[in-house]
Amino acid sequence: MIKPMAIALVHHPVLDRRGDVVTSAVTNLDIHDLARLAKTYNLARFYLVTPAAEQQQLVARIVLHWREGAGATYNPDRCQALDSLRVMNTFDEALDNWRSLAGAEAVALLTGARHREGISFPAARGMAAQHPLLLVFGTGHGLAPAIYSPDRPCLAPVRAGHYNHLSVRTAAAIILDRLVGDNLTLS
Amino acid sequence: MIKPMAIALVHHPVLDRRGDVVTSAVTNLDIHDLARLAKTYNLARFYLVTPAAEQQQLVARIVLHWREGAGATYNPDRCQALDSLRVMNTFDEALDNWRSLAGAEAVALLTGARHREGISFPAARGMAAQHPLLLVFGTGHGLAPAIYSPDRPCLAPVRAGHYNHLSVRTAAAIILDRLVGDNLTLS
Repeated sequence: MIKPMAIALVHHPVLDRRGDVVTSAVTNLDIHDLARLAKTYNLARFYLVTPAAEQQQLVARIVLHWREGAGATYNPDRCQALDSLRVMNTFDEALDNWRSLAGAEAVALLTGARHREGISFPAARGMAAQHPLLLVFGTGHGLAPAIYSPDRPCLAPVRAGHYNHLSVRTAAAIILDRLVGDNLTLS
Repeated sequence: MIKPMAIALVHHPVLDRRGDVVTSAVTNLDIHDLARLAKTYNLARFYLVTPAAEQQQLVARIVLHWREGAGATYNPDRCQALDSLRVMNTFDEALDNWRSLAGAEAVALLTGARHREGISFPAARGMAAQHPLLLVFGTGHGLAPAIYSPDRPCLAPVRAGHYNHLSVRTAAAIILDRLVGDNLTLS
């Protein structure tokens, strides 16, 4: 058995391709793909982190369309998947919210293609059995240094030492399947 | 060791939400996400199947942008990932091409969320060790009946008996990781 789990999709602070810290734009398909993954793997929360007011409004409009607008009857599966979504101004706000929900033993586990020294997937599965994990995904070219701290372990990349440029959607799918996979409690 | 593998993303014939046979529109992010997955998992080919001439032209424009246009210098990783992409008019054309490349023992393995009687992932891994597989993914609401035939086995869904509405992008990621995963020959 694993503890409750959540994911955070961070749009700030992240790096652009030059390594500058930026706020990335929200991608519509990221919302749906990650919400569906969250529902599939029984995650408690999907935190979408952006401080940009207009981006938050965009997300709210998309959610409203699928929850109460034409989308709710057109595609109820999408509506259902969005239940776990919470929009947060900052990563700290998301982590605080997850701690208040899952307890003080919650741990943020940072994902990234550049984590050569990251902990292995078997070790992360062990961690998931002990701690309510918040899996953290960066958009753009990955999480900015400000997100990293000694109490936040890093997960090894999906494919070390090889072509390693998956989209955040497909990387999140693979990581969740590896960590939760057959440990899943069927509801 | 597994045999060479390929994927096909089928836009016709597929079902819409009412169960009618349609040609779905090509999604830009599908091209990039699946091309990157193909590169990550050392696949030999990524067949994009659509009979629609204007959709084929759209794909050609996107590929040209990333191969030779502004995208080639902006993001060389995307350019590199597109090497395996081949646009095909029909699924039969894709399968014929795969057979001519990988040999007559090639097998089409159909994926779908509705395959309750599908073969298990461990069995499919065994199959991948014996046959050059063409993994077939449907867009829209899944592959149409015309694609199914007794010589084309069906893979079990990613999550049987539970919420099972992943995007084709994330489902392909999970399936490839489960089938190829640690069998991957690093190049």
